[in-house]
Amino acid sequence: MPLARISVPAHLTAEKIQALANAVHEALVSTCDVSVNDRFQLVSRYAVGDMIIDPTFPNVQRTADASIVEITFLAGRTDEKKRSLYQAIVAGAVAGGFRSDDLMVTLVENAPIDWSLGRGEAYEEHG
Amino acid sequence: MPLARISVPAHLTAEKIQALANAVHEALVSTCDVSVNDRFQLVSRYAVGDMIIDPTFPNVQRTADASIVEITFLAGRTDEKKRSLYQAIVAGAVAGGFRSDDLMVTLVENAPIDWSLGRGEAYEEHG
Amino acid sequence: MPLARISVPAHLTAEKIQALANAVHEALVSTCDVSVNDRFQLVSRYAVGDMIIDPTFPNVQRTADASIVEITFLAGRTDEKKRSLYQAIVAGAVAGGFRSDDLMVTLVENAPIDWSLGRGEAYEEHG
Repeated sequence: MPLARISVPAHLTAEKIQALANAVHEALVSTCDVSVNDRFQLVSRYAVGDMIIDPTFPNVQRTADASIVEITFLAGRTDEKKRSLYQAIVAGAVAGGFRSDDLMVTLVENAPIDWSLGRGEAYEEHG
Repeated sequence: MPLARISVPAHLTAEKIQALANAVHEALVSTCDVSVNDRFQLVSRYAVGDMIIDPTFPNVQRTADASIVEITFLAGRTDEKKRSLYQAIVAGAVAGGFRSDDLMVTLVENAPIDWSLGRGEAYEEHG
Repeated sequence: MPLARISVPAHLTAEKIQALANAVHEALVSTCDVSVNDRFQLVSRYAVGDMIIDPTFPNVQRTADASIVEITFLAGRTDEKKRSLYQAIVAGAVAGGFRSDDLMVTLVENAPIDWSLGRGEAYEEHG
């Protein structure tokens, strides 16, 4: 029930985008106790000029491949888990051809009652 | 001042998408004390492969019509209201041709000061 | 590390969209202590019918140019800063050709640990 929004420049290849999506999910599984099958991702492709991203803030060197990953998930992960998540996302993305400076990640948290995964049932009600 | 992001596969008909959007809004009105005219929705259509959604987690059977509704609204709704909201969204969507397993809903909350609905005024300032 | 999602109707000119994006960023800098180079924005263009926005709620007159700005940023800004932010966004957008009634803004907050701006490092780790 994490929901990941993956925003990428439109010129990226399908393979590279898939590698990033896989990296995000595998990182959630390996560092944040997300189930392997608990995968919900939305990929949005942006034309040049519609991703307005500073090339160097705060101390990195971004290229035209710079991408943004927004994850909404349950509150409660420790800072340590979040640090591991970032490291794992980037490690996976780098294995898929990204530069490590090109990945921005941001997290938003909510509560168990804030998810329904189907049938109009709150997630906590699922058996 | 809820803001609903409705993410649907591109093959859905305009009628079906409209039915889902209507279901989301009517559910907010009927279960969460939202005004009838307080409607703000963004519909995004995704190509095959850009919605990466597990077909069965946790215990449902999703089809290619699976859609995701993200709602940002004021904190303070009870768990009971949120449960009613999910039920009402799905009931309305099913009436519009969706299968109940194909609707995922997630909520993010904020505060009254976090909304401006126009004129650069915080919403609470509106008369 | 604010992330701004700017949702606009597809008929807006590139100049007008850029003016809005600039207004959003300059307002964050001038009212919310955001660094000039700390700019991360995603612009999404919507076809007619995919932005479902009430024309008058609560007491404004929206046109077909109505646009929505969602900002995710660090918790902790005072109500006064948020009010100033709304005013500054709209003032800048009006200078760029928008009507003040056509701008909706909503804020979502998170924590410093919820951001990685590159290299898989939590932002707080950046030197």
